[in-house]
Amino acid sequence: MLKVVLLGGGNIAYHLFTAFGKLSSVNLIQCYNRNIHSIEEFGKFTQITDDINSLEKADIYIIAVTDDAIGQVSDMLPFSDNFVVHTSGNVSMYSMNAKNRRGVLYPLQTFSKEKLVDFGTLPICIEAEDEKDFNFLKAFSSELSTHVYEINSEQRKVIHLAAVFVNNFVNHLYYIGHELCEKNNVPFNILHPLIEETTHKIMDLAPKEAQTGPAKRNDQSTINAHLEQLPNKNYKEIYKLLTASIQNTYGRKKL
Amino acid sequence: MLKVVLLGGGNIAYHLFTAFGKLSSVNLIQCYNRNIHSIEEFGKFTQITDDINSLEKADIYIIAVTDDAIGQVSDMLPFSDNFVVHTSGNVSMYSMNAKNRRGVLYPLQTFSKEKLVDFGTLPICIEAEDEKDFNFLKAFSSELSTHVYEINSEQRKVIHLAAVFVNNFVNHLYYIGHELCEKNNVPFNILHPLIEETTHKIMDLAPKEAQTGPAKRNDQSTINAHLEQLPNKNYKEIYKLLTASIQNTYGRKKL
Ligand SMILES: NC(=O)c1ccc[n+]([C@@H]2O[C@H](COP(=O)([O-])OP(=O)(O)OC[C@H]3O[C@@H](n4cnc5c(N)ncnc54)[C@H](OP(=O)(O)O)[C@@H]3O)[C@@H](O)[C@H]2O)c1
Ligand SMILES: NC(=O)c1ccc[n+]([C@@H]2O[C@H](COP(=O)([O-])OP(=O)(O)OC[C@H]3O[C@@H](n4cnc5c(N)ncnc54)[C@H](OP(=O)(O)O)[C@@H]3O)[C@@H](O)[C@H]2O)c1
Repeated sequence: MLKVVLLGGGNIAYHLFTAFGKLSSVNLIQCYNRNIHSIEEFGKFTQITDDINSLEKADIYIIAVTDDAIGQVSDMLPFSDNFVVHTSGNVSMYSMNAKNRRGVLYPLQTFSKEKLVDFGTLPICIEAEDEKDFNFLKAFSSELSTHVYEINSEQRKVIHLAAVFVNNFVNHLYYIGHELCEKNNVPFNILHPLIEETTHKIMDLAPKEAQTGPAKRNDQSTINAHLEQLPNKNYKEIYKLLTASIQNTYGRKKL
Repeated sequence: MLKVVLLGGGNIAYHLFTAFGKLSSVNLIQCYNRNIHSIEEFGKFTQITDDINSLEKADIYIIAVTDDAIGQVSDMLPFSDNFVVHTSGNVSMYSMNAKNRRGVLYPLQTFSKEKLVDFGTLPICIEAEDEKDFNFLKAFSSELSTHVYEINSEQRKVIHLAAVFVNNFVNHLYYIGHELCEKNNVPFNILHPLIEETTHKIMDLAPKEAQTGPAKRNDQSTINAHLEQLPNKNYKEIYKLLTASIQNTYGRKKL
């Protein structure tokens, strides 16, 4: 059995803890957090500690703490030449202390404690300095998910940036759609099937092929009517900028 | 059986034709299009014509042509005081000729001929000038879908505008995410589970509650790093504007 020590007591630590509990091949021998209260419930199933100097010997140490604290926690590790990974999409592998052999295990999903996550098909992006460690990490991650990708630190940064567009910014557009509906006594859920279809479409089709709408069609009279209809300057600017960006992507056809 | 005449030979006409074929309560007695070739395949199942002066007597006439041609086609109808609806999200009911009793049957989805649509739970937005016609249209639409909404022309315009944000603009953000990935040899489908989760989240949670990310967190160092990383001015501007809009929505917390 693979021996694992988990460091951190937040969202990711919680979901990894739950996922490891289901795997017969993985033995989570210890959990550490600077604040023991956050990991108290883990104590029923494994050893817990808030003393970083009493970490057990393991095959892999997973640092699942806030991005800014990853380097610091790696500095505090009371050993060297062990295999240590972090779980961030946004932090280079090299920001961890070089006294240990370094790697990354980044589960590409948005996690919150309230919502169960099925790791089974979740993309896991892995990276390691050393080839033997990489092979170990690949086998280890494959226990968690069937979708394991070799992704270097540069690519991981790109994924994190792209995720801001397809997750954070998309959600903000949902918010604007929601506001427009609510202010006009239209139930937002009338748009749910359209939203689902928009998402499903790009599972088969490149987003470039899936584009429709007044901007793509260069339908200037609809664009003007929409701009007039929008209730504030901020929404108008977003509308204009995204419309112009779509028009630049497809070329402004002469009508 | 309800007698229906369908005018138009495009996407919507095609999908309505298919949906009516499955309903024992609806008799599609005739299809018209200015160009008979577009509706030739309908001819195996119903009468087809390109002569608007030979339209049969029906309970409802559905004008499913390009937005700009709806008024014109309604002018050409060789009868009066019949019930006539169009299928557009974007055109007022009153843009049709007042010689007939007017209404709207707007299926809120993005249609293309290649892809089958299940009308069963599709939102259908209906409106009619006359109360009796409205009740008829409600019963008629309920044969097509369990999700029929009474939506006036003003509300319909709002829905259409909101749809631009949650469908057209969202798809453009998918496109940008796709571009960023491709340019860096990252397979875009690594983001599919995140995209699906982003969509599923707002089926239970208001988009305002679902927001996450550096803009929401006011994580300025990540925002700066992302802006630096973006390959062109256009993407940078979109990033800045949407980030500012998210920050304005949640208030810039002092750190
Ligand atoms: N949430 C996601 O959707 C997601 C997805 C993929 C990857 N990640 C990555 O996973 C990592 C953890 O994220 P999370 O969402 O689990 O964060 P979180 O829920 O905010 O939890 C943060 C954890 O870091 C600990 N911590 C914070 N500052 C610390 C410090 N100075 N020293 C030691 N420990 C400290 C906290 O300890 P206390 O309990 O004592 O406060 C807490 O256990 C991050 O690198 C993040 O980028 C997150
Ligand atoms: N597609 C969607 O996702 C969707 C969703 C909801 C509502 N709608 C609405 O449904 C209606 C039809 O859209 P669609 O997607 O089916 O359009 P479409 O596929 O482009 O088909 C347009 C139809 O209109 C006819 N037409 C165009 N100009 C005409 C004119 N001057 N006189 C007579 N007929 C003319 C065309 O005839 P020819 O075959 O002779 O060219 C064709 O049959 C529009 O009001 C649209 O807003 C569309």
